Amino acid sequence: GYGRTAVNYEEGRSTFVDDVLTSQNETQVSARVRLNVHATTSTDQGVDFGARLRLQWDQGDSGIDRVSPGQIYVTASGFTVAVGNVGTAFDNAGLLYASEVGLISRSFGNPMGDFYAYESKSYGANNNRLGVSVEYAVDALKARFSYVDADQTGLTDADEEISISVDYDWNDVALSAAALKDGKSIDGNDQYFLGAYYTLAGTENGVGLSYIDNGVANKPVVVDGIRTGTANVEQGKTFVLYGDYVVAPLTTISAYVANNDAAGNETDNAFGIGARYDLGGAYLAGSLERGYDENVRGDFGVRFDF
Amino acid sequence: GYGRTAVNYEEGRSTFVDDVLTSQNETQVSARVRLNVHATTSTDQGVDFGARLRLQWDQGDSGIDRVSPGQIYVTASGFTVAVGNVGTAFDNAGLLYASEVGLISRSFGNPMGDFYAYESKSYGANNNRLGVSVEYAVDALKARFSYVDADQTGLTDADEEISISVDYDWNDVALSAAALKDGKSIDGNDQYFLGAYYTLAGTENGVGLSYIDNGVANKPVVVDGIRTGTANVEQGKTFVLYGDYVVAPLTTISAYVANNDAAGNETDNAFGIGARYDLGGAYLAGSLERGYDENVRGDFGVRFDF
Amino acid sequence: GYGRTAVNYEEGRSTFVDDVLTSQNETQVSARVRLNVHATTSTDQGVDFGARLRLQWDQGDSGIDRVSPGQIYVTASGFTVAVGNVGTAFDNAGLLYASEVGLISRSFGNPMGDFYAYESKSYGANNNRLGVSVEYAVDALKARFSYVDADQTGLTDADEEISISVDYDWNDVALSAAALKDGKSIDGNDQYFLGAYYTLAGTENGVGLSYIDNGVANKPVVVDGIRTGTANVEQGKTFVLYGDYVVAPLTTISAYVANNDAAGNETDNAFGIGARYDLGGAYLAGSLERGYDENVRGDFGVRFDF
Repeated sequence: GYGRTAVNYEEGRSTFVDDVLTSQNETQVSARVRLNVHATTSTDQGVDFGARLRLQWDQGDSGIDRVSPGQIYVTASGFTVAVGNVGTAFDNAGLLYASEVGLISRSFGNPMGDFYAYESKSYGANNNRLGVSVEYAVDALKARFSYVDADQTGLTDADEEISISVDYDWNDVALSAAALKDGKSIDGNDQYFLGAYYTLAGTENGVGLSYIDNGVANKPVVVDGIRTGTANVEQGKTFVLYGDYVVAPLTTISAYVANNDAAGNETDNAFGIGARYDLGGAYLAGSLERGYDENVRGDFGVRFDF
Repeated sequence: GYGRTAVNYEEGRSTFVDDVLTSQNETQVSARVRLNVHATTSTDQGVDFGARLRLQWDQGDSGIDRVSPGQIYVTASGFTVAVGNVGTAFDNAGLLYASEVGLISRSFGNPMGDFYAYESKSYGANNNRLGVSVEYAVDALKARFSYVDADQTGLTDADEEISISVDYDWNDVALSAAALKDGKSIDGNDQYFLGAYYTLAGTENGVGLSYIDNGVANKPVVVDGIRTGTANVEQGKTFVLYGDYVVAPLTTISAYVANNDAAGNETDNAFGIGARYDLGGAYLAGSLERGYDENVRGDFGVRFDF
Repeated sequence: GYGRTAVNYEEGRSTFVDDVLTSQNETQVSARVRLNVHATTSTDQGVDFGARLRLQWDQGDSGIDRVSPGQIYVTASGFTVAVGNVGTAFDNAGLLYASEVGLISRSFGNPMGDFYAYESKSYGANNNRLGVSVEYAVDALKARFSYVDADQTGLTDADEEISISVDYDWNDVALSAAALKDGKSIDGNDQYFLGAYYTLAGTENGVGLSYIDNGVANKPVVVDGIRTGTANVEQGKTFVLYGDYVVAPLTTISAYVANNDAAGNETDNAFGIGARYDLGGAYLAGSLERGYDENVRGDFGVRFDF
């Protein structure tokens, strides 16, 4: 797991207080403690079995309300099959989040539509959610498939989400592609991702390009500052160009430009720049970004893995 | 702890949705991740002290809502005294669950009355529950006593449950007996168990016989498909004949026939058959059973301990 | 962490049941299981990073409802800076709780006003609470500073609590002082502590003196046995004289006399005596105390650390 804390500035930060959109302090401290519990055993035939749980606390939680739902998996001959609270093929696509900057790891080039992912806290009302995932890894290839049913009991009639993704390393180029059907059990919420990243031979400098067809996301509907409900909103298509450059030993500068054509944007262009300094076992990082709503956000802090 | 997952078929499976008995999918995936946390220390005099907690997630839980209530215990000279969330003497009787088959470990020959056991999740409304248990183990003998008070504050006036059990190994025969007073704080809910298991010398094949006087269980009262409340229902007496047979290396077939004379049964006879294949560190298992309501259930899956 | 259990007698013990003050059993079993989770990493420059969580169950909890909020800290060159769920400078003052006796570690000479401390369970409604603490330790000196904001979002307008404390060892005398502003975000709830403890050279026998200006505590207002609300009540000033004496190998007797001048006291003098027998890795302890309400309480039990 890891621990991290950062000063986090978000221009125009607000939240809903009893459905009323209310301003809050733009500068707050963000923190997270994540603890992965991973219990494994191996059979005489070389098959590995494992179970995963996660404890995660974020600043703003009164405590760890719930330890995550469990996952059971089996690994043999390059195949990993998992049942329960699984990571999904789309969410795990190798380059999907590659344009992220800063300590909190954010980017306006990230996917904006709704889909399932490994759940760090609680299924919430979907307590009968069931996921199954398959991953196959061999040499430079990783292929993934996942299936998530929001309610396996059949009491509610939600669509199942199905997704696939493939990563492939070819010389100095990493390729990644993913597709998704009925994301987060929203009928017709199909999404697509294509990404490539080129690393300059003999360096850690590189440049990447991504295309995301975002599908829809369920968002609050706000009328005159009052939340009146939620609606599925088209999130448009996103193109992202990004790169990383090692400016000095242990110090990496990253930046991205993203273009998204969703209807509600104030501007279709967002960009961000970040820096990271490696302490060996921990790192300092900061970033500055400007989003599609023309607001600025930035962070600076420290993260360490354990 | 352990992890397990299985496909679980239950004919006529249903649940209450706002007190209305509602059908759900007969075939569902069952999964469990159980993690026992066990912290111990030993004094210079050779006395062992320990504390136990359990984290358990079952498919159908939105997460691990609560880590189990704690248990404190002391072990010395064969005696173990535990306070808090204790295992009870009745529930821990050596052969009480010996007729179970399949991956999920079920049997219609299991006890059907209500009584306290180690609580894997939460006391619920009985947050002031207090248990005390004593176990004495020497050579072939294990004797147990337990006491559980549903509310030690005295604010509610519930009966205390008291239970005892004894296990004894005599040549190739294992004997087990248990008795219970006021099970789960229900006045007059007394229960008795007698069991024996004979292992053929030099093999792992065996045959067992159990008798259980089940007392009562608190069950929903359903009128025209609507749950109108709960009532304490007599669970009758159960006789179980069961056996295990190693048909091939690592492969064991188990089966049982159970007879129960409770008033509400569609049939007084239930039976089950199961198979288990040892993978070394994990096992595959499956079962098929037919219950007192003439419905069939079956499972197939994998379990591993860690 | 540790485990402990004790028989706990409290004369006139009562609790609120739907706001009605109701008697409960005076003698109950008390138990606690505390598990500290502590994940750390060190950088190449010798800086230590760590994250803390706590799982704590007390008799009376239905389970561990919430794992504690997290804490992130950094240690370098004698300085420790922590963010999140931090211990506070006032609460961590070296001698603040030095007059405690018995297994449950209680004393009427403890501080009685409200202030923040490390939260073992949940922030409750103050989920946006944020703490920052700094500790500096060098040779015989420890200095601490802490800051706790009940709501960093600014949505509620609570005062921030600030506190400092200093411990210093000078030959056979330990000195400790602390000050607090706006304790537990109550405006004007300032508190002060001064303490000294003298150890007889070459022994573990000693005698201590404390002065506490307690500020206020938020207490239920009870009219004719009914709780009508809460109010901030002045807790007066407390003087405590206490001592420890090793009467036999492994056996220590401790005692205190405390004087508090708060308006609501039946008597201004309280006292307590306790004994502790070391088992090596665990200890037995018991105590008897008489409080400002002229009621007696006592405990006897066992505790072990792990």
